[in-house]
Order: sequence, then structure tokens, then C-alpha cells
Amino acid sequence: MAVETLALGFVFIVSLFGLVFSIYLANYVMKQDSGTPAMQEIASAIKQGGEAFIKRQYTTILLLAIVAALLLFGVYYYTGQKDHAVKTAVAFIVGSVLSAIAGIVGMAISVRANLRTASAAKTSLGKALTISLRGGAVSGFLVVALSLLGVAGLYYLFGANPQETPFLIVGFGFGASFVALFAQLGGGIYTKAADVGADLVGKVEAGIPEDDPRNPAVIADLVGDNVGDCAGRGADLFESTAAENIGAMILGVALFPVFGVNGVLFPLVARAFGLLASAVGILVVKPNEKDDPMKALNKGYYVALLLAIVGFFISTKLLLNNIWFFYAGLVGIGLSLVFVYITIYYTHHTHRPVKGIAEASKTGPATCIIEGIAVAFENTGLPVIAISLALFLSYYFGVSSGVEHGGLYGTAVATMGMLATAAYILAMDTFGPITDNAGGIIEMSKAPEAVRKRTDRLDSVGNTTKALTKGYAIGSAALAAFLLFSAYLDEVAKLTGTGFASVDIAKVPVFIGAMLGGMLVFVFAAFAIRAVGKTASCIINEVRSQFKNKNIMKGTVKPDYARCVDITTKGALANMVLPGLLAIFFPIIVGVVLKAEAVAAFLMVGTITGVLLATVLNNGGGAWDNAKKYIEAGAHGGKGSEAHKAAVVGDTVGDPFKDTAGPSLHVLIKLLATITLVLAPLFI
Amino acid sequence: MAVETLALGFVFIVSLFGLVFSIYLANYVMKQDSGTPAMQEIASAIKQGGEAFIKRQYTTILLLAIVAALLLFGVYYYTGQKDHAVKTAVAFIVGSVLSAIAGIVGMAISVRANLRTASAAKTSLGKALTISLRGGAVSGFLVVALSLLGVAGLYYLFGANPQETPFLIVGFGFGASFVALFAQLGGGIYTKAADVGADLVGKVEAGIPEDDPRNPAVIADLVGDNVGDCAGRGADLFESTAAENIGAMILGVALFPVFGVNGVLFPLVARAFGLLASAVGILVVKPNEKDDPMKALNKGYYVALLLAIVGFFISTKLLLNNIWFFYAGLVGIGLSLVFVYITIYYTHHTHRPVKGIAEASKTGPATCIIEGIAVAFENTGLPVIAISLALFLSYYFGVSSGVEHGGLYGTAVATMGMLATAAYILAMDTFGPITDNAGGIIEMSKAPEAVRKRTDRLDSVGNTTKALTKGYAIGSAALAAFLLFSAYLDEVAKLTGTGFASVDIAKVPVFIGAMLGGMLVFVFAAFAIRAVGKTASCIINEVRSQFKNKNIMKGTVKPDYARCVDITTKGALANMVLPGLLAIFFPIIVGVVLKAEAVAAFLMVGTITGVLLATVLNNGGGAWDNAKKYIEAGAHGGKGSEAHKAAVVGDTVGDPFKDTAGPSLHVLIKLLATITLVLAPLFI
Repeated sequence: MAVETLALGFVFIVSLFGLVFSIYLANYVMKQDSGTPAMQEIASAIKQGGEAFIKRQYTTILLLAIVAALLLFGVYYYTGQKDHAVKTAVAFIVGSVLSAIAGIVGMAISVRANLRTASAAKTSLGKALTISLRGGAVSGFLVVALSLLGVAGLYYLFGANPQETPFLIVGFGFGASFVALFAQLGGGIYTKAADVGADLVGKVEAGIPEDDPRNPAVIADLVGDNVGDCAGRGADLFESTAAENIGAMILGVALFPVFGVNGVLFPLVARAFGLLASAVGILVVKPNEKDDPMKALNKGYYVALLLAIVGFFISTKLLLNNIWFFYAGLVGIGLSLVFVYITIYYTHHTHRPVKGIAEASKTGPATCIIEGIAVAFENTGLPVIAISLALFLSYYFGVSSGVEHGGLYGTAVATMGMLATAAYILAMDTFGPITDNAGGIIEMSKAPEAVRKRTDRLDSVGNTTKALTKGYAIGSAALAAFLLFSAYLDEVAKLTGTGFASVDIAKVPVFIGAMLGGMLVFVFAAFAIRAVGKTASCIINEVRSQFKNKNIMKGTVKPDYARCVDITTKGALANMVLPGLLAIFFPIIVGVVLKAEAVAAFLMVGTITGVLLATVLNNGGGAWDNAKKYIEAGAHGGKGSEAHKAAVVGDTVGDPFKDTAGPSLHVLIKLLATITLVLAPLFI
Repeated sequence: MAVETLALGFVFIVSLFGLVFSIYLANYVMKQDSGTPAMQEIASAIKQGGEAFIKRQYTTILLLAIVAALLLFGVYYYTGQKDHAVKTAVAFIVGSVLSAIAGIVGMAISVRANLRTASAAKTSLGKALTISLRGGAVSGFLVVALSLLGVAGLYYLFGANPQETPFLIVGFGFGASFVALFAQLGGGIYTKAADVGADLVGKVEAGIPEDDPRNPAVIADLVGDNVGDCAGRGADLFESTAAENIGAMILGVALFPVFGVNGVLFPLVARAFGLLASAVGILVVKPNEKDDPMKALNKGYYVALLLAIVGFFISTKLLLNNIWFFYAGLVGIGLSLVFVYITIYYTHHTHRPVKGIAEASKTGPATCIIEGIAVAFENTGLPVIAISLALFLSYYFGVSSGVEHGGLYGTAVATMGMLATAAYILAMDTFGPITDNAGGIIEMSKAPEAVRKRTDRLDSVGNTTKALTKGYAIGSAALAAFLLFSAYLDEVAKLTGTGFASVDIAKVPVFIGAMLGGMLVFVFAAFAIRAVGKTASCIINEVRSQFKNKNIMKGTVKPDYARCVDITTKGALANMVLPGLLAIFFPIIVGVVLKAEAVAAFLMVGTITGVLLATVLNNGGGAWDNAKKYIEAGAHGGKGSEAHKAAVVGDTVGDPFKDTAGPSLHVLIKLLATITLVLAPLFI
């Protein structure tokens, strides 16, 4: 009992520290200079638009969540597990609310940090970088601390019985995925519809530059960066860390005979050490004017990684006392690094893939798209091999530990390793939209060239970090999903009492489940992509109709930004519902009709296909984006050349791929895992 | 014994009838009028180009096949199965050679039927349709008859022991897939590289119409239609029918206690009836000048379907004496019809998907591509549901038969049902390139407007039938692959003697196998698409350099067609090797490292992903193609409008999707199945 108290106490203290640390960071950001009135006016429009969207979006989501909680309660109540019913519904609500809080507060800071970053950029690149990174870190630490606090708190409240309680808090994970699904879908549709709409009429038809204040959709575009990249990805990683903790605790139950309560609490302790490591990483980032900002960010990341390794060593030593699980954790930490390098290779202009797309753009948009698709398909290879190796090694290390069922626990520990630095990664991710916004504010407030150059440098680093986070998110989603399969199988075994533990896809219904899982991924992606197209076309019509007023183009009359913001908000909210409901109801139908084993195959093959397609969409989109930037930097004739026009088509095609459908697939994968885990009683 | 002799005798007689029937059809085509000297000159250039490519391609393939046969012999010899070694290698060679003969002879007729169709089009649409359909049917009947003759012949030669011999002829299926892989890859790369190359310089840069004699790549483009659509798809369906027969015979072995030899021979008898039904279907097509040519083709198809149903009833009655298997067969026949309607919905301009793409083209190439991708992803839904239902129903009927292991045999019978009319379908498919070529010959020989209109009508029907066949091919590949999984599991169970029969993807190595299978599909598609890009860029350079001679553009000097043909030939042959070797060696490596159960998951998830991605690529490409044609017919401003320019980009992107990568994936799926089946001894 002493160990349990100590471990839980440590976890609570670190979670609270995480919350205090984000308040500290938020204070740091808020007390910075808030720029000129011209800047403030723009920032205030972004803030209003963002907050209005978030308010309406989360109202919708929470209403849907209440319905879902009631249904969830009903399912458990109906299947005769009354105590379970209350606890699962409560856990679901807590998961939803904490995820929403993390998203809303993170957004509130990021739409304030943008202005302060812009203001700091007037004098210092280093200062601007510190503000934007710390602004991003508010999100990062809130997400990780609240997810940890939620899981640990529910574990404590629901009785802290190490062999029972983990199964009672699966609702928390489902709540988190439920919110993440709609947050990512809504945010993703918003950001890309605004972007595509603004670009197609502004840049392509009217020939005005990006972020030009004459474009009526420019504020909507800047709002989109916040709601998609900041709120959406925050909800995504909130879910990853929550689901991974719960899944690993359930696997810990299977090892209860060996490790006792230690195996169940180990995931929480490891995550707490990761949070501390990330905090130090954030604080050591001390950039100066001359260095590449990416170097400063990398330094912080490496410090966080090293400290996470130390934390892993301590927690495996103290709780598991088996060095093999430390090795398994190293595999996960290594995998997060490998994903960074793979993403850079496929999306950075210094390597073959992006250069090839730029080269292909010389013969027009068709060859640009063909080469981009070839790159996107090809780039599934290395990530899958890396995930396979990581699974294999961590499983092997787990088996080598000599512990019964140790193999699966090894893969769980690897997932913890991969997610150890989640707070730092998320800070780098949210850094992206903040610097992007800062650039927009600078551009729109007509600041001098030297200031623009500073924000351009930051923005370009932000683009890199956004791409890296997506790679990291899909890698960790794949590992976390594998963990959750195993948890699902344990849950079903527990419910049936038969020890069902195999998923034999040679059986006809199971194979059908597998096929339907793969299919859902494609259809869901289609709906997400089409939602962007639909919403974008509303914006295009609005911008065109505003441009009929010649004075807007002359710059003598301000366009009606608010109307575009409003149209985008409505479009994004309306169009997130259909793919969202598909993702929720399809697995339930499959489970009820084809039963538990088929739904396991549905989940696994859905995950595999989801990881593959998300990699295609994320990195394909990123590669097109950077091919365009590479040409804009002067290659193949630079801006205005035929190659550039072709590359702009590629970039536009890539937009809904990399910022709507791809990230939504991460969430889909985990939603499938948590929904089947929670609704397992229905499938038997 | 009496039944066996009777059944085998019937199969031999029908196969020989099939061969005689194709000779009859070839004679019918050859004795038709062969047109004006101007036409003959063009047709002769196509014929020379096509025959030169086929000669070099099949020389390469047969050399590779000899190496593969030796390795295959080595594997079996090394694992101590000496008798098996000889027979498997012989079966492999026979499968390769028969597939090659079917491809070569079919091509030889189709490059002659094009001229005769063009000549007939001078006076009669009906006559032209009959010639082109019968020309296509030469391929269709050769393919089905030779595949049936090969399987039945080897069964007889290898001892006709119903419980042993089916396992000895799996090499035949592997030989067929081996040839099909390279035939489809080489042909697919050839046809689309020539098409994209000719279009990008001719239509887009120089602004001359399609099939304009001034374009140096025009002959290569016309050759491509034959080598891709005719020879490639022929090899694809040769393999489908062969692999399905062998797989079903192996499942028949499992039912030996119930049906005796009848269950083993039933697949051959059912196929023989299908061949007869298709022959009648071809003969009843009697089109006239006024009717829609599609109606005439459909009439023949429905007659063939009805007769196939009768044949199925007779064969199930006589050999299995169990009505439930007749129902299972009906499911397969029904599925082939359902696929036709789904394909029409997604690729025909009268329905929402194509209209949506055309609509999206109004805002430029980017939205055209985005909407096309959304349509392509979405269109995986109905085919997967249809396949799932067909598997489920046929399995259920099989179980209802009361026969032990009857469920799987039910799915086998459904596959037979789907493939019953393969000869007719293949005739409709090869009809496509013949009419396309006839149109090209008419265009280049500057025939009068009325004649062009006739060939345009035929060409448009040909485009529909080509799209339908691809849908049919992927549906039958999915069913046949499911059959082959089961055969693989039987084979492994037999080799290990342990009754291994489950593929549990919850195990780590098996899950890794599954992930790698999905990944291979994307990487293979990437290589296939890139091969088109690479070869096309060589052609683009050549055409541009020829266009520097102003007299070519004036029409006073003939361009050097032969150089383009030669460059395309070399490019296609060089670029088919890398994806081909990847497809062959990757499953072997996975099998050797991760062993038999993991390779089964590799195969199954590879198949699921392959079916999904092939559906995306085939129908996506088809939808873009028809959106362009819809606009060309006058929608959204017609030819020359901005919408048209955007749709041309979509069409060009779709080219390597629908005619190279998509069809190559059909072959990949079946290759994975036959290669694992044949090399099973290595994976234990």
C-alpha cells in the first residue's frame, strides 16, 4: 500500500505542477508588450473569430457528448452492470470536459500569444521565439497534465483497486476521443476551407499576396490556424496520452501476479517523469538573434529526451525492477526520433522527394500531382518499417524480461516512451500557428521589411514543427492503438470469462470485419476532404461577391472579415457532423452484427489502413507545400513561373490532405479503439 | 471413376471447343475488308510497334520465368520434396507459357481487328461492332480455354489423384501470376507513358487534337491501348481463372469425404459451362445502325449470364446434388452484375460523382483534383459492402448446405459464379482498345465526318466496357484471393501436419505481417505511378525535340513515329522490373523472417488494402476521364473553357491511376496469393 500511495502522490503532485507551470507560462506571455494599435486591431479580430468558433464548436460537442453519455449509461445499465454504468458515464463526461478545457484554454492563450510574438519580433527574434514557444507550451502542459490528472483522479475516486479500476475508467478515454474527433474535424475543416477559399480567390484570381488585408477571408484563415493546429492537435494528443495510460494500466492488470500494483501505476509515473522532462526542455530554450531558431528548439527537445530517458530508468528501476522494460522504453523514445527524421526526409526541400515534385512541376500541374501522389504513397514504407521494428523489438525485450505476458507489456512501455515528451512536442506544434499568426499580423499591419523577415524565419520553422508533430502523432497513434487492441481483448476475455484472445481473420465474418475497417478509413477521409471543398466553395462565393466592391480592392474600404468568419464557422460545424457520426456508428453496427472478434479485426485493419492513409495524406500534403516554397525561394524560375503555378495547385490539393483528413484519421484510429473498448459488452 | 472420366472429358472437349471457337472468330475477323492504303499504312505502324514491344516484353518475361522456375525447383528440392519439385516447376512453366501464348495471340488479332473495324465503319456501325467484339473475343476465349486446358491437363498428367494432385498444380497459378505481373506492369506503363507524353506536348503545349498524325507519339499511344488493355488485362484474367480453379480444387479436397472427386472437379465443369454460355452470348450480339451499341453488348451479356446460371444449376445438380451451392453460385453471378452498376454510378457522367468533379473543375485544377480524390476514396464503400455481403451470403449458404466445411466451399462456388462469364467480359474489354485504335486510324487517315462519328460512338462504348471490366476484375480478384487464403491455410496445415488454420493478428509478428502487407500495396503503387512519370518524361523530351522541325507541325514532313515507339518500349521494359521484383521478393522475405502465420496476415491485409486502393485508382481515374468528356460534350463552357483545362489536368492525373497502378494491383493481389501458396514450404 505504501508504494501505491507514494506513486499516486507523485503523479498528483506532478500533474498539479504541470498546471501551475502552464499558468506560469501563460502569465509570462500575457505580461509581454502587446504591440501597436494596428496590430491589436488585427489580433483582436482573430481572437474574436477564434473564440466565437470555439464557443459554438464546444457547445455542439458537449451537447453531443451528453447524448453519448446517456447512451453509454444505457448500454451498461441494460447489460446489467449498474455500478459500471454510472462510473463509465462519469468517466466519459470527465474525459470530455477536461479535453474541452485543455482545448479552450490553450486556444485562448494562443490567440493572445500571436500578438505578443508579433510585437516582440519588432526588436528581437529570440524574444519572439521564446514567447511563441511558451505560448504553445501552455497548451502542451495543460493537455498532458489534465489527462494525467483525470486518469489518476478517476483511478483514485473509483476505488483504486488495481485489478478492477482500470476497466472502469475506459470511459475517460472514449470521452477524450469523442471530443477530439469533433474538435479535429471541425478545426481541420475550418482551417483548410478558409485557407483554400482565401487563396483561390485572393492569390489565384485577384493576384494579391497571402495575408493581404484586402482579402475578406484573411482573418478566417488566421483564425483557422489556431482552431485546427492548436485546438485540434491538442485534443488529439490529450486523447493519445489518456488512451495510452488507460490501455497500459489494463495490460498492467494482466501482470498483477508479477508486479502487483506497480505494473498498473507504472504508466502514470512514467508519464509524470516525461512531463517534468518536457518542462526543463522548454526552459532551456534560449535562442539568440543569429542562430537558426530550429536549432534552439531542437536543443530543448534533446534535453527533454535525455531527461525522459533518465526518468524512465528511475521509474522502471523503482517500480518494475527489470532492465528489459527500460530497453523497451528506449525503443519508443527512439521511434519518436526516427519519425522526426523520416518526416524531414519526405517533406523538406533539401531531399529527393520535395525536389522531385518541384522538378515535376515544370511540366505542369498534372505531373506535379502525379509525382506528389507517388511520393505520398512511397512514404508509407519507412514509417511502417519503423513501427514494425519498434513493435518487434519492444515485444522481444518484453519477452526477454522473463515475465509472463511480458511481451505485450513491452510494447506498452515503448508507447509510454514515445509519448514521454508529448508536452514538449505539443508546445512545438502550437508554436506553429502562433508564429504563423504573428506573421499575418505583421503583414497586415504593414510592418517594416526587417520585422517581416524575422517572422518569416519563425514561420518557416513553425511549418517544420507542424509537419513533425503530425508524423509523431501518427506514430504514437499506431503504437497506442496496438495497446488498445490488447486491452480490448482483455476486456472481452473478462466479460465472457472464456479467455477469448485470438482474432482469426481466416474466419469469414472476421475477414469481413477487417475489410469494412479498411473501407471506413477511405470513406471517412473522403467525407473530411469533401467537407473542406463544400465549405470552401461558400467562402469563395462570399469573397467574390465582396470583391465586386471596387473600393475593397483599392484598399479604401475594409472588407467584411466577420462575414467570412461566420460562414466558415457555420460550414465547419455543419460539415463535421456527418463524418463524425459515421466514425461513431459504423463500428457499433459492425460490432452488433458481426460480434466481438470481427470488430477486433475491424479495429486492427482499420488502424493499419488509417496509419497508411494518414501518412500518405500528411506527408504528401507537406511535400507539396514545401515544393511550392522551394520554387518560391527561386528554384525552377521562382514565383510567377509556370512551375510555380503548378506547385500552387499541388499545395492547394495538399491542404485538406495534411490539415483535415490526415489529422482526423489519427483521431479516428483512437476513437475506433476506445469505442470498441467501451462498448465491448454490446458485442458479445 | 466413371464420373471423373466423364467430367474431365467434358472439360477437355469444351476447352478444345473454346480454342476452335477463337480460331473461328479470328478467321471471321481476318476475312473482312482491310481498308484503304492510307488506313493500312497506319495500322501497319501500330501492328509493328505492338508486335515489337510484345516480342521484347515476353522475351524478358520468359527469361525471368526460367530463373524463377529454377529457384522454385530448388526450394522444393531443398526442402526434400523431390517429386513435388519437378512437378511444381513444370506446372509453373506451363502456366507461364500458356499465359504468354494467350497474350501474344490475342494481341496479334487485336492489332489486325482495329484496321478491319475502321474499314467496316466506313459503311456500317453494326458491322464495325461485330468485328471489334469478335476480335476481342479471340482474346477472351483463348484466355479462358487455355487456362482451363492447362489446369485440367496438368491434373490429368500429374496422376489425377483427387486428394493430392490439386496441390501439385499450384505452380501453374504462380506461373500465370508471374507473367501477368510483368505483362500488366509493362503494358500499363507503356500505354500511359505514351498517352501522357503525347497529350502533354501535343494537346497542351502544341494545341493539336488527339490522334493528330503530326504528333510523333501518336502511334506509340495507339500501340499502348493494345499492350495495356488487351494483353495486360488478358494476362490478369488468365491468372484469375487459373488461380480460382486451383484454389477451389484445393478446397474441394477438404470436402473429399462428402463429395469425393466431384467436389474437386466441380470448378472445372462449372468453368466449362461458363465458356459455352459466353460463346452463345458473343454470337447473339446482332447490332444495327440505330440502336445504342451498348444495348447490343448488354443483350449478349445477359444471355451469357442466364445460360451461365443454367449451367451452374446443371453442374451443381449433377456433381454436388445440393441446391445451396447453386444459390452460392448465384451470389457470385449477382455480384458481377452489382459491380457493373456500381462502376457505372461512379464513372458515368449521368450520376452525381462525375457531375460533381465537372462542377468542381469550374474553380480550377486544384478543386477538380480534390473533388476527384474525395470521389475516389468514397467509392470504396459500395464495392466493399457488396463483396462483404457476397462473402457472407455464400458462406451462409455453404453452411446451410449441411456439409462439413461447406461454408468456405460456398465462397469458392460464388467465385466460380463471378468468373463464369469471364470470356464474355474479356471480349468486351478487348473490344475497347480495338475500337479506340479504329478511331485513331480513321482520324489519322482523314476519313469523312460521318465515319468518325461512327467510330466515336463505338469508342465511347469501349471506354465504358473498359471501366466495367476493371471493376469486375477487382471484384473477382478479391473473391479469388479469399479462396486462395483458404487454400494456403490448407497447404500449410498439410505441410506441418498440425492443422494450423488460424491467422491471429493479435499476435505481434502476425500484426507486423499485416502492416507490411498494407504498406507493400502503397509502395508498389508508388513505383508503378512513378514508372509512368519517368517513361513519359523521356517521350516528352523526344516529342519536343521533333517539334523543333517546323515542317512536322506544318504537316509536310512525317514525324519519326518509330523513335517514340522505341523509347516507350525501352522505358516500359526498364521500369517494370523494380516494382515487379518488389512484389516478388517482399512477400518471400516477410515469410522467411516472420513465418507462415504472419505471411497469411500479410497476404490478407495486403489483399484488403489492394482491393481498396485499386478501387480508388480505377474508378477515380475513370471519373476524371468522364468528367473531362462530359465537359467536352458542352457542360460548363465545353472545350477550351477554364473548366475544361482543369478537367484535362484531372484526366491526366487519372491516367496512371486507372491504367497502370490500379490494374497492376489486381495482379499484385493474386501474385501474393499464389507466391505464398507455392513457397509455403519455405515459411515453416
